[in-house]
Amino acid sequence: MAAPIQDVFMLFGDSITQGGWEPGLNGFGQRLTHVYARRLDVLNRGFSGYNTTWGMPVFEQCIAKASDKYAPRLRMLAIWFGANDACIKPSPQHVPLATFAANLKQMVDMIKSPKSEYYSPTTRIILISPPPVNTHARKAALAEREPPMALDREFDITRAYADAVRDVAAAEGVIFADVWTAIYEAADKDEVKLDKFLGDGLHLNENGYDVMYKTLIDTIGKECPEVHYANIGPVFPPWVAIDLENPAKSLNLAKGET
Amino acid sequence: MAAPIQDVFMLFGDSITQGGWEPGLNGFGQRLTHVYARRLDVLNRGFSGYNTTWGMPVFEQCIAKASDKYAPRLRMLAIWFGANDACIKPSPQHVPLATFAANLKQMVDMIKSPKSEYYSPTTRIILISPPPVNTHARKAALAEREPPMALDREFDITRAYADAVRDVAAAEGVIFADVWTAIYEAADKDEVKLDKFLGDGLHLNENGYDVMYKTLIDTIGKECPEVHYANIGPVFPPWVAIDLENPAKSLNLAKGET
Repeated sequence: MAAPIQDVFMLFGDSITQGGWEPGLNGFGQRLTHVYARRLDVLNRGFSGYNTTWGMPVFEQCIAKASDKYAPRLRMLAIWFGANDACIKPSPQHVPLATFAANLKQMVDMIKSPKSEYYSPTTRIILISPPPVNTHARKAALAEREPPMALDREFDITRAYADAVRDVAAAEGVIFADVWTAIYEAADKDEVKLDKFLGDGLHLNENGYDVMYKTLIDTIGKECPEVHYANIGPVFPPWVAIDLENPAKSLNLAKGET
Repeated sequence: MAAPIQDVFMLFGDSITQGGWEPGLNGFGQRLTHVYARRLDVLNRGFSGYNTTWGMPVFEQCIAKASDKYAPRLRMLAIWFGANDACIKPSPQHVPLATFAANLKQMVDMIKSPKSEYYSPTTRIILISPPPVNTHARKAALAEREPPMALDREFDITRAYADAVRDVAAAEGVIFADVWTAIYEAADKDEVKLDKFLGDGLHLNENGYDVMYKTLIDTIGKECPEVHYANIGPVFPPWVAIDLENPAKSLNLAKGET
């Protein structure tokens, strides 16, 4: 079995999280795994198509109770939803805006409330706003399906869900990474120019993930620099620091001699 | 804390493992994380510069004892060393060939021996041979360092370490992924043509990781198809399979209703 030698950076969200290691995209999951190598285990907890209502029971199972002393410590938790919650009726993925905000709050409270059995005061929580939607590209992509589908998202509605993420983060006192604004500004605040960042109008392409990753890592550097990868040493020492006469001594963490 | 909702696919090795998520390379770690998403957690246990002698005490800490019922189950374990063990004296990374083989055997026995406190009969172990070294490119790369360094590896010696991996795998009855041969044959068995697969003569570039990944995943498909990603269902259901009337019912694993 796998021992919890490293703390965890959990990425919890929908398809844009799940796809963060996709070949050719240099996605944010891949890049985080790379920069946090030998520091934190970056776990893919992205669930394609999920909204916060479906994510909630999953989230409760992804988090260990505070009483489980054997589970790896959750050092960082990114929660990134909204892209599906913002679907418009009659989409089964639609979640009302107030429910979306309440779900996010409930996830945060699970970790932050001292009364919660999942209470983890050392976990840094980052709420991420969904990217803007390019309804022109999305409409075209859906029209090509068999059978063709009607447009299921609207620009201003997704923006309202992004705003709700900001509001929940502020009310709860957790970190906010504003991916919606970063990508919209990179596109000169022009919905059509979002083409450069969103291949199908909804999912991030390589350019989109690049903006998103930089936004996230910059936010970490500013809001919680103690868990920025540059400020965490490797769990096991660089090979040039190994005691060649007694390697085990410098590599045995339990002895606290690294 | 993070709950062990998914079993683990651990990648244990040196820098060629650690770099498996590097941007721009479509490395094997990234690609495994992608294809095993929602199935297995792929953990980066690559340690740049390490050989098997230094890896051994680290390995013992990366594996949980069989008595620790709370640790995530180790479903797959890839062990990939040799590139540094094969250094020639006076390199401090040099490990004698017989010691290298004995170290690999000891790692495998830790998991496979019923007498071991780390015994895990359900873990599938894959030993991977190191890639061939391009001594021309390696020599040039070392000559450019400040101060310049002499060549620290030889083609035939690295091949002998690759052969030792095959022998240990055969003797121990575990799976063998022959990356040395796959890359050498892709280079038309011409050391100079290894340039296409090894940027600096030692580390894999995008072409090298592509050959390596395909070799590994093909080996998995042939030798242990039950843990090939295509044959493992997602832990949580696809969103279209969620019970819309009672989402929690179809998403609660403990109830066994997915």
